[in-house]
Amino acid sequence: MSILIYGDHRSGNCLKVRWVCERLGLPFRWIEVDVTAGETRTPSFLAMNPAGQVPAVELEDGRILAQSNGIMLHLAERAGAAGLIPEDPYARAKMYEWLFWEQYSHETAIAVARFQLAYLNKPRESLDPRLFERGEAALGRMEQALATADWLVGDGLTLADVALVAYTRVAHEGGFDLAGYPAVKAWVARVERELGIG
Amino acid sequence: MSILIYGDHRSGNCLKVRWVCERLGLPFRWIEVDVTAGETRTPSFLAMNPAGQVPAVELEDGRILAQSNGIMLHLAERAGAAGLIPEDPYARAKMYEWLFWEQYSHETAIAVARFQLAYLNKPRESLDPRLFERGEAALGRMEQALATADWLVGDGLTLADVALVAYTRVAHEGGFDLAGYPAVKAWVARVERELGIG
Repeated sequence: MSILIYGDHRSGNCLKVRWVCERLGLPFRWIEVDVTAGETRTPSFLAMNPAGQVPAVELEDGRILAQSNGIMLHLAERAGAAGLIPEDPYARAKMYEWLFWEQYSHETAIAVARFQLAYLNKPRESLDPRLFERGEAALGRMEQALATADWLVGDGLTLADVALVAYTRVAHEGGFDLAGYPAVKAWVARVERELGIG
Repeated sequence: MSILIYGDHRSGNCLKVRWVCERLGLPFRWIEVDVTAGETRTPSFLAMNPAGQVPAVELEDGRILAQSNGIMLHLAERAGAAGLIPEDPYARAKMYEWLFWEQYSHETAIAVARFQLAYLNKPRESLDPRLFERGEAALGRMEQALATADWLVGDGLTLADVALVAYTRVAHEGGFDLAGYPAVKAWVARVERELGIG
């Protein structure tokens, strides 16, 4: 039995889960779900994940989990000392801080702008300008953190890097230019190299 | 030394951290920060938490943590077997799922509507109607989960309940009527009783 990942291949949230499975050597099967075609709103999908969102995973025993960052935490915990979750309690807490910040302040600006522009093909002028202000602020905060560190937490790759690279690496598709964030740009390449993607 | 909680007393996100300290018997001092007066945007506050958000805590050793749900995880982990975090890996993962869902799908609708109506005194008609649709959907999802269970995860209070009760208990201030969600209403009373609040 392998893990089933229900995901849209264009979604950074879904790719996070795939990357963690690959990194940890966990066998998985990818079930493509087209968000733009309403496939997360069908009765059968909602029966599996009442939140109507991808990614959702079906574990080897048939139980379901949702929320990308929660799924990553679970898979990395199962893998034990394979890294990705710091053992030091404070470092682990800083990782949690980045994971929640990513979903609250980064994804909701950068991923949302990208979805509207690149997948719904809306013109930039039709989007709320605050999306772009909030996205620039999020990138600015990452630049500040990465100006003096190679990784978001501690001295190696953690789930914080995996979560935040997912939409930062495609921020240009949301109308953001990483040229103004050189430390972020170098970090994206570093994380991609480490994950073997890109 | 005790933990310093920088928080706005009207903010459910800040109260979560206070409740967990009280529940776990962790000594703390509360430093009031007025969000509406811009006190999270001062240079000294931003030096402490570059995200410019409350809550932030200063731990006993002077180190800083932010993000309410991440802070709760850290404090509950430190307390070890005192409950609030399930020991079973799948149950713990479901708790993570609720924590991320809370920040992504619940807080961003219900807390935001409440802030605009109750603290910025905006008229309801001036708010984006999707806020209310999304808030009702979030309450509907909770009702479905709580129709057959006393707690969101397993058979006792966890951080999932603490996180979600914070804004659900004041949802009426955001224009939501819990009368339509009887299981949620009963659960709010149950969690308040368990936390000794309300």
